[in-house]
Parts: sequence; C-alpha cells; structure tokens
Amino acid sequence: MSHDTFGHMFRVTTWGESHGPALGCVVDGCPPGLPLTEADIQHWLDRRRPGTSRFVTQRREPDAVKILSGVFEDDRIRARFGGPVTTGTPISLMIENVDQRSGDYADIRDVYRPGHADITYDAKYGVRDYRGGGRSSARETAARVAAGAVARKVLGDGIRIRAALVQIGARAIDRARFDWDETERNPFWCPDAATAALWEEDLDAARKAHTSLGAIVEVIAEGVPAGLGAPLYGKLDADLAAALMSINAVKGVEIGAGFASAALDGVANADELRMDPDGRPIFLSNSAGGILGGISTGQPVVARMAIKPTSSILTPRRTITAAGEETEVVTKGRHDPCVGIRAAPVAEAMMACVLADHLLRHRGQIGRDPR
Amino acid sequence: MSHDTFGHMFRVTTWGESHGPALGCVVDGCPPGLPLTEADIQHWLDRRRPGTSRFVTQRREPDAVKILSGVFEDDRIRARFGGPVTTGTPISLMIENVDQRSGDYADIRDVYRPGHADITYDAKYGVRDYRGGGRSSARETAARVAAGAVARKVLGDGIRIRAALVQIGARAIDRARFDWDETERNPFWCPDAATAALWEEDLDAARKAHTSLGAIVEVIAEGVPAGLGAPLYGKLDADLAAALMSINAVKGVEIGAGFASAALDGVANADELRMDPDGRPIFLSNSAGGILGGISTGQPVVARMAIKPTSSILTPRRTITAAGEETEVVTKGRHDPCVGIRAAPVAEAMMACVLADHLLRHRGQIGRDPR
Amino acid sequence: MSHDTFGHMFRVTTWGESHGPALGCVVDGCPPGLPLTEADIQHWLDRRRPGTSRFVTQRREPDAVKILSGVFEDDRIRARFGGPVTTGTPISLMIENVDQRSGDYADIRDVYRPGHADITYDAKYGVRDYRGGGRSSARETAARVAAGAVARKVLGDGIRIRAALVQIGARAIDRARFDWDETERNPFWCPDAATAALWEEDLDAARKAHTSLGAIVEVIAEGVPAGLGAPLYGKLDADLAAALMSINAVKGVEIGAGFASAALDGVANADELRMDPDGRPIFLSNSAGGILGGISTGQPVVARMAIKPTSSILTPRRTITAAGEETEVVTKGRHDPCVGIRAAPVAEAMMACVLADHLLRHRGQIGRDPR
Amino acid sequence: MSHDTFGHMFRVTTWGESHGPALGCVVDGCPPGLPLTEADIQHWLDRRRPGTSRFVTQRREPDAVKILSGVFEDDRIRARFGGPVTTGTPISLMIENVDQRSGDYADIRDVYRPGHADITYDAKYGVRDYRGGGRSSARETAARVAAGAVARKVLGDGIRIRAALVQIGARAIDRARFDWDETERNPFWCPDAATAALWEEDLDAARKAHTSLGAIVEVIAEGVPAGLGAPLYGKLDADLAAALMSINAVKGVEIGAGFASAALDGVANADELRMDPDGRPIFLSNSAGGILGGISTGQPVVARMAIKPTSSILTPRRTITAAGEETEVVTKGRHDPCVGIRAAPVAEAMMACVLADHLLRHRGQIGRDPR
Repeated sequence: MSHDTFGHMFRVTTWGESHGPALGCVVDGCPPGLPLTEADIQHWLDRRRPGTSRFVTQRREPDAVKILSGVFEDDRIRARFGGPVTTGTPISLMIENVDQRSGDYADIRDVYRPGHADITYDAKYGVRDYRGGGRSSARETAARVAAGAVARKVLGDGIRIRAALVQIGARAIDRARFDWDETERNPFWCPDAATAALWEEDLDAARKAHTSLGAIVEVIAEGVPAGLGAPLYGKLDADLAAALMSINAVKGVEIGAGFASAALDGVANADELRMDPDGRPIFLSNSAGGILGGISTGQPVVARMAIKPTSSILTPRRTITAAGEETEVVTKGRHDPCVGIRAAPVAEAMMACVLADHLLRHRGQIGRDPR
Repeated sequence: MSHDTFGHMFRVTTWGESHGPALGCVVDGCPPGLPLTEADIQHWLDRRRPGTSRFVTQRREPDAVKILSGVFEDDRIRARFGGPVTTGTPISLMIENVDQRSGDYADIRDVYRPGHADITYDAKYGVRDYRGGGRSSARETAARVAAGAVARKVLGDGIRIRAALVQIGARAIDRARFDWDETERNPFWCPDAATAALWEEDLDAARKAHTSLGAIVEVIAEGVPAGLGAPLYGKLDADLAAALMSINAVKGVEIGAGFASAALDGVANADELRMDPDGRPIFLSNSAGGILGGISTGQPVVARMAIKPTSSILTPRRTITAAGEETEVVTKGRHDPCVGIRAAPVAEAMMACVLADHLLRHRGQIGRDPR
Repeated sequence: MSHDTFGHMFRVTTWGESHGPALGCVVDGCPPGLPLTEADIQHWLDRRRPGTSRFVTQRREPDAVKILSGVFEDDRIRARFGGPVTTGTPISLMIENVDQRSGDYADIRDVYRPGHADITYDAKYGVRDYRGGGRSSARETAARVAAGAVARKVLGDGIRIRAALVQIGARAIDRARFDWDETERNPFWCPDAATAALWEEDLDAARKAHTSLGAIVEVIAEGVPAGLGAPLYGKLDADLAAALMSINAVKGVEIGAGFASAALDGVANADELRMDPDGRPIFLSNSAGGILGGISTGQPVVARMAIKPTSSILTPRRTITAAGEETEVVTKGRHDPCVGIRAAPVAEAMMACVLADHLLRHRGQIGRDPR
Repeated sequence: MSHDTFGHMFRVTTWGESHGPALGCVVDGCPPGLPLTEADIQHWLDRRRPGTSRFVTQRREPDAVKILSGVFEDDRIRARFGGPVTTGTPISLMIENVDQRSGDYADIRDVYRPGHADITYDAKYGVRDYRGGGRSSARETAARVAAGAVARKVLGDGIRIRAALVQIGARAIDRARFDWDETERNPFWCPDAATAALWEEDLDAARKAHTSLGAIVEVIAEGVPAGLGAPLYGKLDADLAAALMSINAVKGVEIGAGFASAALDGVANADELRMDPDGRPIFLSNSAGGILGGISTGQPVVARMAIKPTSSILTPRRTITAAGEETEVVTKGRHDPCVGIRAAPVAEAMMACVLADHLLRHRGQIGRDPR
C-alpha cells in the first residue's frame, strides 16, 4: 500500500499542497445509489473553513468543492432521488486554492521551523515544496472533510458524529456543563459556555505573548451498531487511532477512559451490563468507549485526540538552516493560534470514514448489515 | 485488506486461539540473507512468557517457537553466516499451546464478562470460541513477539528498542530515577527500583481486593535514522498508533509529549535545534517524540500506551447472558493481575515491526537506506 | 502489500518450501458459521495429490491437512451444524512434508536448470533453498487447493467449479465430445475419452524421448450470479488473470473466446440477448466468458490457462553454473511429465478463491448478496 | 483494497467517466527528485489521442493534461534539474473532457448493447452513467497513459518499452519483417509495412460491412534487470496479467511463448544458457518471455494481449431492454473500428507502471536496485 490512501473498502486517497493550484481526494468503493451533491459536501467544508473568526487563520479560502466524477443524474434519477446519486465508481473531489501568498514563505525556505516537517521532508525526500508547508500543511484536511461528508452518506442518519473541544491549553471544560448545542454557539466547538469565555481570554493572551496553545478534541459517534470492527489488526480502535493520529499536530489518541484507565482498578473499570426495558443489552458505564476486543458494543464510540500548540509562532526560536548554520526563526504569516479548533470537523470526518469503511467490511464478511 | 495482517512491505499475519492446538504468524517480505534461528526468536518470547513471577498468569506455556519456512542453511551458508539465513520467502512461525485447561471456561460460555470481547464477538460473528477468550486472548501476542524478533533482525543492531512500565494503577515512576538496567532486575520492567517495590505492594493489595490494575508502558527506539515514515496516511506515528492500539487492553497511545502537549504553549513545545560538534543537527528537547510530519527526526522515537486493568477479576460484576438474562459474573482462572506487565515485550515487538516496515518502504520509494 | 498473499476480503497467505518441514496457508476474512472439517478440505487435496497415476510425479505425499485455528465446535454447535464451523477468525491450515529426498537435489545446487527459477531467485535474493525448487516448487499449490476448499464453502453449492484439460502437447480435445463426467474417469481430467487414450500414448512417447509436454486447462464456474467484479482494477477477469498466472508454469490466461476473439469480427463476437421463459435475460452465446466490463453476467465464467512443458527433463540442456561456467544439465528426480495435469485442481481452487473474494467485496460495497 | 487503484509501492488511482467534466489519476509513492513536466506526459498522451487517423474514433479530445500536485520548482531546482521535479508526494493529473456529445447516447440508456458493460453495471449498481459508457469507456485509459509517463521516469532511460500490433482480425504480421521503426510510420503501430497496407483494406471492408475487428498487441520491455518480481502472488507475470487484462476489451494475456508453449515439448521450450563474451549469462531463446518463477531474467519482458472487436457496431444485434423487453440495437456514434489500435500506448503504460512498482518493491525488500 502506498502512502496517501486510507481505508480498505471505503477508500480515500488525498492529494495536493498548500500552495498548488488545487487539492482534493478520490473516494473509491462508495456504495451506489446515495444522493450526493456538492452542497452536501460544502456544508461540512464550511465548518472547517479558515477565516471564520479571529481565532483561526485569516487566510481567505472559499473551499468550494467540485465533484468531478462518480455521481450521475438524469430526469429519471432526479424524479426518484431528487438529485444526483453516487454510481459506485470513484468520486473525485477537487477544491481549488485561491488565497496563496507564496511570498510569505520565501524567507524560510532554508530555515527549519521547529515543530514543522521542514527538516524531516528534507531528510527523506531531498526536495520540498516549502510554500505554506506544502503537503504537510493543514490545508490537506479539507480533503478529509470532503471525504467525510461522503462517508456520512454511507452511514446514514442513524449514526450521528459530533466533535467538541474539551481542553485548550491547560484549561479543560467542566463536564457537568457539557451541552452539544453550545458547540454551535462559540468559535471553539466548546460544549461549555463558561469555559468558552475563558478560552477567548486565554487565546488573546497567547497571541499577545507571541505563542500558541494546544487542545484536546473529543469526537463521539452515536448510533453505531454493535459488531463493527475486526480482530486483530482491523480493530475499530486501531483504525481510529491511525486515522486520528494522521491528522496534523495530533500527538495522542485515546478511546473511552483512555489514559485514565491506567489508574482505574478492574472493579471500577468494568462496564456492567443490564437489560433495558426493550430487551436490549445496556451498559451502565462506557469506560470502553464503545469498543471491546476491537469491535463496537452499540454504545457511543468515544475518542479523544491531543493536539500540540501551533508550531508557527512569533517568538524567536533557535534552529538551523538546511546548510547547517545555527540561527533563529520567527514564523510570520496567517496562522491559527490553536490548530485544535479547526481540527474538530476533521476529527468528525475521520471518524465517519473509519466507520463507513468498517460498515462495508462488516457486511462483506458477515453478509448483512450489523443489527 | 483483511483483518489479521499488518504492515505493507514487512507484513505479518497472525493466527490462532488461546485453546487451539497452536498459534503463529507468517512474516512476508523479509529481506533475504539475515541470520535467523529459533533461538534468536525464543530469546524475545521468553521475556513475554507466562508464569515467570507471581505477578503474571500462572498458565505454564513454554512458548517454544518453530520455524516452518523461509530460512535455509547448507554447509556453505553455515560457513558464511554461521547458521541459517532468511531466504526472502515467507517465514512461518508456530508456537504450540500446551497448558490449555478448557474446563476453566465452560461455565462462562453463556455469560458475558464485562470488559471482554465476549459480547462483541457474539454480536458480530454469532459463534465464538469462548475457551480462554479464543482469538481475543492475549496469547495471540506471542505471535507478535515472534514477528518482532524477525523485525529486529531487519533493523540491525544500530536500532535499539526497549520498553518500560512507567505507571501501574495510579502510581507513576519518578523520572529522575529512570534507569534502563533496572528494568531487567524486577518483574515489572520498571526503570525505577523504588517504585517497583511499591508496585509489588500495590499488586498484592489489588489481588487481595479481588481486583486488578492498569498500567502505562513506554517504548523507545533509539538509533532510528531520520526519514522513516511518509505523509499522510503512512505516517510513522499513525502506524505506531494503530500497532500499539491493536494490542489487547490498550486504550490510548501517545507520541512524545502526547496528551501533555495540549497543555503546553507553542514556545515551550518547540524542540529547538542546534548543530552538534560533528556537524549534525541536534534537537534540544524531544516533545515531538522523534517524529515530525509523520517522519522520523533522528531523535529517539518515544511512544506510550495506556492499558486498562485486567477485566478478569474475582469481584462479582453485574452482567447478562447470551440469552438476555441479568446475572452476575466472577472470572476465575489464571489471570494476570496487571496485563500491562507482559505488554512491555509486545510493545517492543510492535515498534520493531512498524520500523522494519517503514525501513523497507523508505528504501523502496527513495532508493537507498536512510542516512 | 507483500508478496505471498492474495485476495482482499477473502485473503489467502501461503508459506512453505518443497523440502521444509511443512507448508500451509492462512485464510483470513472467511465468514463465520460455515461448517468446515479437515475432511472437507482433504477431499480436494486428494485430487491434486502426487503419486496417483503413472503420469504424475511418484513422490509419495499424503498431503494430510490440519486445521490449526479458526474453526470451533462444542455440543451446541455440533447439534446445530453437525460439526465444527468457522468463527470468522483466521483459519490456519498446515500440510506436513513427508517424502522429501533432499539428496536428489544436492548435485544441482550450483547448476541453473533451464526453465526453472534457480537463476532468478539467485539474482534476486542471493541465497536460495534449492531442495526441490524450494519456494518455487509446485508443492506450494497444495496450500492453494486447501484455501480453495474453504472458498467453496463461502460460495455454497449454487456455484459449481470444474476444470478440464483441453489440450496436452499439440493435441486438443474434440469439443463435440466434451463430457464433464469423463474427467473423473481418466488420469488427465480429460472430458473426451477418445483424446484421453491418445494422450496416454503421447505422454508415454514423451517420457521415452526424455522430454515433457505442455497443456491447456479450462476452468468453468457455473451458477455465478451477475454482478461480481468491479471496475477497473478490481475486474473479475483481471483478478482471475493474476490468480491463474501465479500458478507455476502458466504462461497465458484467457477469458471466454480469449485469443480467438482477436480474429472474430464484431458481429460474430456479440453475445446477443433474449429473455428466457422465466423472464430472465439469456445470452445466446458466451464469447465474453461470463464477464463484461469486469463484472459477471450470470453466464458461466470461463477461463483457460496455458501451461508450459515440465522444465525438469532427462534430455541434456546447455546451461551455466552459479559461478558462470558453461555446462550441461539433466534433471533427474520424480517429476510430472506434464505439470498441466495436476494443475487442474489448482485452477479450480484459484477460481474459487477469486469468486469468494469478489462475493465478499460485492456485498461489502452493495450491501446485499448479488441476485 | 478498493477497486480503482493498482500497484503497491508505485500506486495509481484513476477516476472519471466518459462524459463527466474530467478524468484523471493520482500517482502515489513516486520517488522524489525526478524531472517531470506536463509536456513529458503529453508526449505519451498524444500517441493515444483520438481523431488522429480515419481508423480511430473521430471524437476530438485534446487530452491536455494538467499536473495539480506533487511536483515543484523554484529557481534553485530549475538550475539543478532544468525544471520541476517530483517531491515524493501524490501526483494528481487531470484531463478535461471537451468533446462530449451526450445526445448521442440518450436513445440507448435503456437498451443493453451486446458486448458492453451496460447490463452488468445495472446488475451490480442499479444505477449507471450511460453517457458514452460512463466509467467503462475506453476514455479512462488516458489516465493510464498519463500514469505510465510518470512510471517511465521512475524506470529511467535504460528500460525501453514499446508496443506493436501483431494481428488485426485474422491477419497476423510476418515476423520476418518485424521492424520497430515501422510502427511509427503507419496508423496501426504495425511493425510490418506490408501487413499494414492490408490492414487498411481489412478495416475499410469491416467498416463497410458495419462490423469491427479484434487485434493482438505485443508489448516488450527491454533493459529490464534480472530480479524484478516476487513469488508467489507478487509474480511479475501475474501482475502484468492483471494489468493488461484490466484494459477495456482485453480477453487474453500471455507471456513469452504463451499459449503456444502448451504445444511445445520440454526440450524445445527450454531456454538454454551460455555466457556472453562479457561474462554475463545469455539465454539462447526467450520462450519464457523474460520471466522465470515470477522474476525477471534480464531478457526482454514480452507480453501479448488479445482484444476483442469493438462492440459498438452498425449491424443490428438482438438484445433486451432494462425493462426486459426483446429488441434490436444498432450502436451509432464515433467508435474505433478496432479498439486494439489505440490500446498499444495503453499496453506500454501498464507495462511501465507494473515495472516501476516492482522496481520499488524490489529495492524495498532487497535494499538496493537490481543489477
């Protein structure tokens, strides 16, 4: 397998650099007959779009998606589905880059910015598109969000995937105030209004101090049927871990109780079981995060990812040049003070893609949808 | 791709259940000409073997490995290499199960043990080898350790991979006392002698309380050259995350500063760079855990994984039967009071396999070994 | 992907050398709940077994298969299914080598036999298990036949897969006399009794002349539903071509009219369509061999493969040594005078594996079995 | 693995329909530092372009390729390489469709054209982009040719890949007159001028008779080093077979002597070996087509593929509608009278991609380029 593809049955290949003409992805293996329009995808892209508040990069990218293949409509399909549907063939999605300012980066082509992939791309490839970080730019995540929009169609309305920031810098939310509706009301996807107000102050302070903040994003999928996933290297949690860890700046992934489970004892950690009034199994807790033995339990699938603070900061940092000279670097440009904020829609997209892939793999092996 | 295989160029397929006749793996894509004997592999298996202290399961398994294919020697090879070498064809490794006691499990075939995969295997497959957990048993990790021994041969002596437990239950080591040599002197792979003594008490207390403890394992690879890994879905950290998360009972994975990086600011998180006296880049810290943009930096690759407490405990827990009746369950048998202990050699093996795979992928694309 | 695995959802990894202790395969992704015993597999292995007539190698191998994992039974399963069933986890199959005579080969370890892989394995790997051809021996095909037996269980009784030899040397069968029953009555899988008698003479003559003969095997799958396969690199015919071409000594593969279609004109080649009395589409011919656009039509899937004459012959042939000296070689040992004969069960097995894989892939993407 | 991708290390994913806005491919895993311009790719696309003679479709497509990602240049790269180079990241190539005439196809959306994928796409997907054959159109092969151009860069000038038509309809070339230069002088890639003249008559006659002709294409790679390929399911010939069989209208693939080898005896089929004056092995014949045991021998790699006559013909053929009514169909439009002609550049491209993939796989496993 090559490098820019993920998934097995629902398979996504992304391409594109920050300052090239465009970026995009090819979604292969998508089931046929799913209604899909550019507007369906645009809805999710708009949530990740830069320039939407003063807490994210001011780069102005419309991120307008074009569907180049894999959907079709004629009068009959329109009458039956209300618009174009997927045909089962590869769906090519393209987003043109509009607001590149390559001049911003010319002065750092020879200086390795700490925390960036400059030095490792050079070590590996010997040549590098340094404009805006090239392939390692978070702009690539637009393609993930576009693919995630298709994955949501595969999953259907019964599965709901939402992400929230639960920590920025050292300040975590108060779980007692967790309210999904709140995530739509502040620029941080914060489920706790009181904390959101404090984050605003924290981020302004960080910006004034010429620094940046890290974050933790929690992503939850509700309505996932029991049975998705597979032992042992196709575990649902293993695939989620790879999918989330592959997002820019992510340094940790956990499922359910995650790292906290190390400090739990076996009695406390056990998710006990009862029968609900409808005669279905019900877990009394969810330390497992909805996954046991790599397979979904029917509970919400809960994952969290840790995102390091933005590496592009205005405080000078010691570094070296490609030629091996010691120097200092200050990274100007239009950077997110906390890249974690715009990562929330990306985490949702990756969750959607992993679940869609496992849904298809499940019914391939088992011969029916999970129940 | 199917479910029981991992890796792309250095590819491992494992098979076997806890109470079947044997378990094993097939290692495909291994370079030819590497000296490899059963003793080479046995060395690593012996470190993971059950029954070595009172803090691990008392199941008595010699875990004797047989090489069934993929190595060859004749007088000429013996003269040149000192023994058998890999031929580049698939290496089949088999470990016979000796000490199965299926009777131990007959009483729980219909009762779902909380924290185990019983309920999810049933939900997915509708049929289940419940003896000793079947395929979901940690016995499968013996095959990983065997494969890891082959991977170490691929990596050579220049890359050193070691794991240590840095936390059991709520008690973490004191990093100031970190000493690799110490890990060989106590039954916990604990690098801090003082903490090891306390863990002994903690585990005895847990056992008396009919419960179990979780743990955090840290695995470090030193000597990894810069350049291993690939954007964006073949990132070294993404593959490590999947590899470690696929180990039984693991609920979280982090790289470098990991979850702590969320609370760092950009100034503190930056790994600054200088030139060392030999004219090579040197990082002044390693928050990145040796990976930037998914590619190794040349620093040690540092990963940690969180392991939940053993789910098999003697404290009764509420649960249901396969038929949907509410009941309680107590899990007898010969279980590890802290599965994290025996996970350390497994973490090393998975790190070795991921690095070996990326070494081969690197030189495939780039045309030479990394420098 | 590595080298010794084929299939995507129904995935087979084989291992083993001609003169190692054993050979085998791991079948991953098999659906759960399929009755499967060693006898089920042995039935097909016995058809490929050496030593069954004077026209095949006299090596005496019982080819007794052991199932090491992936099936399970208890009293309840026995009551329901009559015996063990697959569990959905990897099925490990092993066949021990019994009748190795390594001494036979010691004299040719340094002499490259024309038509064999000796020279290419050396060129690639620099080291080689030369005993009996090592990994390149046709003994490996036993593992394919074992995997094929599992694949047949996946396909069910509605799909019937049979192979016949339609040519040995220059002598082809008379299609007017094609009778499947006849293939069970002669040692050549020949569907034409009259031709079988002549082949007997041809093979005796070849043996006396210290030479060998090639063959063409035709394999037909009946009952394949319309819809299996996928554009464009997952075409059913593309996967069949690879699967058949990967069999030892195969030099050509064709589907339906195959190479003859080059000489047809478009009018003659068109498989016209009518409705049958039951209201189902019926093709009036099958030039397409049951596949259009890479997807099955519902007609029989028809493939043929060309097999070169056995390279191991008693006539001296000019060659070189590994050290670069010119010499002659005569290949003694117990060789098939026409390897094509024992290839028939192998072709069936590969057809079964490809169809099983595509069945799983189909229902993964489409969400239901093909109709 | 999904459906529209081929290759393992050098990996190509294609997308696009005949009458969509564009088609293209993503080439992933390409080595960095290879000079690559749109003109380099256009050169090969122009050889496959429609409308270049009266013997191919008159659809007017400029087939102008755009590189959207994966290459980079600045003044320094220009100075060193003379232009842009690959960066090791995915190369996205796009070709806009210009001359779609969807009206041509509206009358056949409900009528299954014999020999086309109409009926099978409907059986599989239940929905179909019928305009110009949609995804099953030979227009997709433009993406293959574009990818092949990149593959040639990977292989370098030492490996020369050329294709020729050796048969159209029932008329084969005279091998005694085989002249590669001649393939550039006639519209048939015919290496035999005398036969080319006759094919001109044959094709005019076929057109007048409202029919079409099949063909056989031979593709030869010279300069391939010994050692490419891998047992047993990564055999070079198995991958070639799949790659060629995946091309539209191909019904058979053979290597070296191919189907003719069935009629050879073992003495005649043996490619004997001598040492050449430079002390290198030299084969005295090439029945093997440059491949033994799935691994290249160092001789030219020789493959042939059989292409059925164009299914779109003006002679009425019996068929059915999607609704199950019996009818007749005549396929108007701008069709190639012999699709085999334009398949020659496609065969070259697939050979190039397979060899590039195996080159990368080889050096991944072995650690150095083949010698």
